[in-house]
Amino acid sequence: MQALRLHGNRDLRLEEVSEPIPGPGEVVIRIEAAGICGTDRHLFLGEFPSTPPVTLGHEFSGIITTTGAGVTLAPGTRVTCDPNIPCLSCPQCLRGRINLCPNNRPTGVGRDGGFASLALIPARNAIALPADLPPHHGAFCEPLACTLHGMDRAALRAGERCLIMGGGVIGLLALQLARAAGAEGMMLTRSLAKQDLALSLGADHVAATPEQALQIWPQGADAVIECAGVVDTIEAAPALTATGGRIVILGVLAKGTRVSIEPFDLLFREIQMLHSFLNPFTHVRAAQMIASGTIAVAPLITRLLTLPEALAAISSTAPAGEVRAIVVPQ
Amino acid sequence: MQALRLHGNRDLRLEEVSEPIPGPGEVVIRIEAAGICGTDRHLFLGEFPSTPPVTLGHEFSGIITTTGAGVTLAPGTRVTCDPNIPCLSCPQCLRGRINLCPNNRPTGVGRDGGFASLALIPARNAIALPADLPPHHGAFCEPLACTLHGMDRAALRAGERCLIMGGGVIGLLALQLARAAGAEGMMLTRSLAKQDLALSLGADHVAATPEQALQIWPQGADAVIECAGVVDTIEAAPALTATGGRIVILGVLAKGTRVSIEPFDLLFREIQMLHSFLNPFTHVRAAQMIASGTIAVAPLITRLLTLPEALAAISSTAPAGEVRAIVVPQ
Amino acid sequence: MQALRLHGNRDLRLEEVSEPIPGPGEVVIRIEAAGICGTDRHLFLGEFPSTPPVTLGHEFSGIITTTGAGVTLAPGTRVTCDPNIPCLSCPQCLRGRINLCPNNRPTGVGRDGGFASLALIPARNAIALPADLPPHHGAFCEPLACTLHGMDRAALRAGERCLIMGGGVIGLLALQLARAAGAEGMMLTRSLAKQDLALSLGADHVAATPEQALQIWPQGADAVIECAGVVDTIEAAPALTATGGRIVILGVLAKGTRVSIEPFDLLFREIQMLHSFLNPFTHVRAAQMIASGTIAVAPLITRLLTLPEALAAISSTAPAGEVRAIVVPQ
Amino acid sequence: MQALRLHGNRDLRLEEVSEPIPGPGEVVIRIEAAGICGTDRHLFLGEFPSTPPVTLGHEFSGIITTTGAGVTLAPGTRVTCDPNIPCLSCPQCLRGRINLCPNNRPTGVGRDGGFASLALIPARNAIALPADLPPHHGAFCEPLACTLHGMDRAALRAGERCLIMGGGVIGLLALQLARAAGAEGMMLTRSLAKQDLALSLGADHVAATPEQALQIWPQGADAVIECAGVVDTIEAAPALTATGGRIVILGVLAKGTRVSIEPFDLLFREIQMLHSFLNPFTHVRAAQMIASGTIAVAPLITRLLTLPEALAAISSTAPAGEVRAIVVPQ
Ligand SMILES: NC(=O)c1ccc[n+]([C@@H]2O[C@H](COP(=O)([O-])OP(=O)(O)OC[C@H]3O[C@@H](n4cnc5c(N)ncnc54)[C@H](OP(=O)(O)O)[C@@H]3O)[C@@H](O)[C@H]2O)c1
Ligand SMILES: NC(=O)c1ccc[n+]([C@@H]2O[C@H](COP(=O)([O-])OP(=O)(O)OC[C@H]3O[C@@H](n4cnc5c(N)ncnc54)[C@H](OP(=O)(O)O)[C@@H]3O)[C@@H](O)[C@H]2O)c1
Ligand SMILES: NC(=O)c1ccc[n+]([C@@H]2O[C@H](COP(=O)([O-])OP(=O)(O)OC[C@H]3O[C@@H](n4cnc5c(N)ncnc54)[C@H](OP(=O)(O)O)[C@@H]3O)[C@@H](O)[C@H]2O)c1
Ligand SMILES: NC(=O)c1ccc[n+]([C@@H]2O[C@H](COP(=O)([O-])OP(=O)(O)OC[C@H]3O[C@@H](n4cnc5c(N)ncnc54)[C@H](OP(=O)(O)O)[C@@H]3O)[C@@H](O)[C@H]2O)c1
Ligand SMILES: [Zn+2]
Ligand SMILES: [Zn+2]
Ligand SMILES: [Zn+2]
Ligand SMILES: [Zn+2]
Repeated sequence: MQALRLHGNRDLRLEEVSEPIPGPGEVVIRIEAAGICGTDRHLFLGEFPSTPPVTLGHEFSGIITTTGAGVTLAPGTRVTCDPNIPCLSCPQCLRGRINLCPNNRPTGVGRDGGFASLALIPARNAIALPADLPPHHGAFCEPLACTLHGMDRAALRAGERCLIMGGGVIGLLALQLARAAGAEGMMLTRSLAKQDLALSLGADHVAATPEQALQIWPQGADAVIECAGVVDTIEAAPALTATGGRIVILGVLAKGTRVSIEPFDLLFREIQMLHSFLNPFTHVRAAQMIASGTIAVAPLITRLLTLPEALAAISSTAPAGEVRAIVVPQ
Repeated sequence: MQALRLHGNRDLRLEEVSEPIPGPGEVVIRIEAAGICGTDRHLFLGEFPSTPPVTLGHEFSGIITTTGAGVTLAPGTRVTCDPNIPCLSCPQCLRGRINLCPNNRPTGVGRDGGFASLALIPARNAIALPADLPPHHGAFCEPLACTLHGMDRAALRAGERCLIMGGGVIGLLALQLARAAGAEGMMLTRSLAKQDLALSLGADHVAATPEQALQIWPQGADAVIECAGVVDTIEAAPALTATGGRIVILGVLAKGTRVSIEPFDLLFREIQMLHSFLNPFTHVRAAQMIASGTIAVAPLITRLLTLPEALAAISSTAPAGEVRAIVVPQ
Repeated sequence: MQALRLHGNRDLRLEEVSEPIPGPGEVVIRIEAAGICGTDRHLFLGEFPSTPPVTLGHEFSGIITTTGAGVTLAPGTRVTCDPNIPCLSCPQCLRGRINLCPNNRPTGVGRDGGFASLALIPARNAIALPADLPPHHGAFCEPLACTLHGMDRAALRAGERCLIMGGGVIGLLALQLARAAGAEGMMLTRSLAKQDLALSLGADHVAATPEQALQIWPQGADAVIECAGVVDTIEAAPALTATGGRIVILGVLAKGTRVSIEPFDLLFREIQMLHSFLNPFTHVRAAQMIASGTIAVAPLITRLLTLPEALAAISSTAPAGEVRAIVVPQ
Repeated sequence: MQALRLHGNRDLRLEEVSEPIPGPGEVVIRIEAAGICGTDRHLFLGEFPSTPPVTLGHEFSGIITTTGAGVTLAPGTRVTCDPNIPCLSCPQCLRGRINLCPNNRPTGVGRDGGFASLALIPARNAIALPADLPPHHGAFCEPLACTLHGMDRAALRAGERCLIMGGGVIGLLALQLARAAGAEGMMLTRSLAKQDLALSLGADHVAATPEQALQIWPQGADAVIECAGVVDTIEAAPALTATGGRIVILGVLAKGTRVSIEPFDLLFREIQMLHSFLNPFTHVRAAQMIASGTIAVAPLITRLLTLPEALAAISSTAPAGEVRAIVVPQ
């Protein structure tokens, strides 16, 4: 079968590899959809660590083709893959903080992932999706699961104001979750096209700059959800947060990059800075929300790519306005 | 009666003023003890806003001498004063966030306080203390109430590790609260005398620098309580926090001072930065802990001062090693 | 002016009383709408304690006519009344549990209320409503504030299942709050008319009996909100709750009435039984939700009554199918 | 080797069985200590379901003798066994509620346990203990882990009052945890010997009856921890709980047994009834607390038994005053 494999920094190859065979407790999935995420480009550039040679792709779903011993999921079942494989034996796992497991080897980063015709994963990482779900939608369960974890930390209550910074996939999912929780939602993103998308997904307001956001909500937002992952947005977040509110940071800055905050302001206005990493115990809920249509994902698909096209896409920066490119291996 | 009144920047005077007379719902207290806190020096220097002329002193306790109409507390009762007077009508008050009330005029800052023979306060701000409590102990209820609010945010569980940064009153109270909650406690403070005091108050470990603290707890602390209020400690806090842990900031930096943090580290280790301001709904609990002896305050009293001595003390920096100077008006 | 005053058990009279004059910190309101609630009938029958003679009516709103000294609200402002007046000095108040204040004398129960042309209340209990709000809507802020407190305890997350037991005002508000929080909502109530009303207010499902509810959701609901206040519904609640879920009880049974539960089932399925009393710190949020139209209240108004009609209505049982009768004094 | 195996109702046999051989990811433990708990007697009598023939014993610890492929724990390591084996694939497991997993086959109930010379368990259920821990202490990790889960739900704060009902192992561990969390602790148990034991373990007060408990704390306890598992104590718990407090139920009543509660009282005093089942994510913390000596377990050991003595002990009711009998296989 064909797979898009990383061999080293800037060395991504489309190659023929042998088809995986499931061991006990494992399943093989025929990939229907695999999202290209910023992380894939960071891995390509060597900015994030990986263990080459490895097949990339950690946001994917498909149909089970074969199953190993002891697996109850039936071949033919559509499933989404939770790429994280916590060890379940370390101190973090044993106290339930599985997203902090130091032994996690995520599928598509530390072991072969979804930019291939087939992928091999533990059965417990395969979560069933409805047979009638549009086949490309399953690729959004993983980013939604991460966003859900962040929104759980935000603990929005109906009627609160929620400002989302960053109009990428994470931001547009966070916006929808905020609206689903009964909050008023504002999207702060620079691109007009993404603002329009946000409005079509239920945003009550959009803004291109922090100044504009403050003009709309002069008291700030009860919760600010940082989904851009740049210095500017993190440094702008406190001033956009209402007294007594909270900031949830989902966006990832490069290791070593520092930002500056003003402790006096955060203390006297008692603002909490919360961080959210990965998707502990949220993947099933994400799958259900996509299956039920609570969260719309079709509008987030910018284009569909073959594996050869995916090779080119990952090797270059994302085109302006792209939300998600979905790889559909043959 | 005599009172220590601030008339403007660096203009603090000991003057004769008329004795207060309680209106309906008010009480007058004969001051037994009033602590000098860093805030008093900031007010003296004009670094924090106040409304001169005003009698300073916001950490105090004493005996009720006279009561206004409708007051049930009896003259002769020993009470501690909660200096904060939230308006109870603004949006923050009406949602229970009384410490964020923009209309709060704290006693000893926005209205006359406790560096005087007598003080006038609303009866609901006077909280009864036992008749047999040593008279100087009541002055610690206010700082303990603030510290309690911070420790409530930390939500320590028995067996966790708690690092306190800063060996002043707040830090030494936080240390005792951490120990009372069943946590292991380490005090990080530069002065040897304060380290010794911390050990005598139950610290399991002491350190003079972040490096020393990390040598003792290489994995970091589950909770770091910042009580020094300087740039160095806030910037050092994340590296001293265990993966999955939290930082509670009580220390106050000057308005405008900025510190730098590394978002990547906080995100990948999912560390929460929590801020704690004032003492919402914690003053009674603080009074009970001091009354019951759960929290030792006698060792925190460095010296007792008359009002004239207090004038000198507030006008100069605190002597090295001083924890709390208590003013005892005649 | 005219007022509906309780003089003793089953002794409710429409009488002429003198108009109230606001003292310092007080306001007088011209009543636009005052809801008749089950509590009023219990007070009439002497089943709940009150302090006659007293004007009934604790769910009301209106326009400020006159204000006492120190009040910032302007005459002409439309306001809703929070009837509860916690003492703010007792141990419960001082730790922030103001709904448990033993000294609370609720307006319309322990002091004169809203079944009259005018009512006198503390300014801090008057919460502003928009000038363009339909005048009868403000009477729903109080029941909504109570329901919000219960729903805060339920802490619903988007995508969860919420079963409401009881199709009265409280149940229909709880249903809307559940839907606003992104939960699926089922209404269990016996009357077909109330089921229809629930469907029109967003219920995903309706049921007349626990058996029907279980047929629709065989695994039970993540949260069950008891709003009927009868033995049958409380005893049926556990079986309708999903493993790991919670029950929030808002409904009031008579003092002394006992219900039976099966601890084994609650323990092995780790179900929490939570109780919610009154509206601590929720009245402003309720007012905002009604002002913004997030919660629809017009469909909950069954009929409008004059004061003489109200006398008759309170003295008899509620007609079948009545949700809320609103008194509109002249 | 020898093992105490249940073959059916009241049919417990000491038999020779072959020694277990660890598969991949498994370890074999030489048992040093295995506690006899009330559950063992219920299993013997057929009151709780099991899958005979099965070796009983679910509270045990010992030394690893052999390890299967892929195990990092070294032979010779002292470990405690977490008997629960959640499937990690069902909806409950995938949302982190592993104690509610319907597929859990607990060691010593659904698969062979610790009343034997050797036991075979998954490596991830073996949690390391210090080499110098007294060998019988490890048997208390499992009951402590369950008690910790309950005390986490209670969320005690230093200075609160905590009443423990029932002076068995669970109650005496709960008492110690309450004291470790800085709460005042009262033990309510009928036996004088257990009251004395409670006092020696730090109880501030003891009582034999609810009436006595109320005489000592007329306002009730902030948290009541039910560890007796009988109708009387559950029905007595609300009256012993302070207004605004919570009840945590750990005690197990027989399936089908019902108790009666008064909803009016629970609602008007806003008391929460919380249930705690098993030990999700708490076993490591329990092991640490026993290893560090935070929790004293030596005083809880009433007698040491050989396997033949254990057969007799399980087949009869516990002698009066027994806290824990520990089986020490040869
Ligand atoms: N915490 C976790 O578990 C987790 C999981 C997944 C992803 N992430 C991180 O979450 C972030 C978002 O992921 P994504 O996939 O949505 O990325 P993305 O598609 O690159 O979206 C980021 C968005 O931020 C916006 N942005 C950039 N600079 C901005 C600025 N100065 N002001 C406002 N908006 C700005 C960009 O839109 P405009 O150009 O329109 O402004 C862009 O659409 C990334 O950092 C990613 O690494 C975290
Ligand atoms: N959030 C609130 O509600 C609240 C309430 C009250 C007070 N506060 C604030 O809390 C802070 C502490 O109050 P306090 O009364 O305890 O003040 P303090 O007596 O001045 O204590 C601060 C301590 O910090 C230590 N410190 C200074 N630089 C340090 C460093 N680089 N590393 C380690 N320790 C350092 C000092 O001890 P060494 O010289 O021994 O290191 C000093 O004893 C202040 O900022 C105060 O404004 C906040
Ligand atoms: N906790 C608080 O702070 C608070 C505040 C306000 C009110 N409350 C209490 O909340 C409860 C509801 O108040 P409300 O004003 O909505 O009262 P309500 O109008 O009397 O509504 C109660 C509803 O319960 C339903 N019901 C009665 N028996 C039932 C059964 N066996 N199964 C299903 N439904 C049943 C009735 O509808 P059907 O006849 O259609 O079944 C009725 O509409 C009352 O007990 C009230 O005292 C509590
Ligand atoms: N939830 C969980 O995860 C979990 C885990 C383990 C155990 N449990 C359950 O927790 C309970 C306690 O376990 P255990 O091992 O400690 O049992 P135990 O040794 O039998 O202790 C129960 C104690 O309750 C006391 N008691 C009985 N009736 C009483 C009454 N009317 N008033 C006061 N005290 C009374 C008895 O002492 P006196 O005779 O001195 O009064 C006895 O010592 C059991 O029901 C057990 O099944 C639950
Ligand atoms: Zn792990
Ligand atoms: Zn205020
Ligand atoms: Zn009160
Ligand atoms: Zn499971």
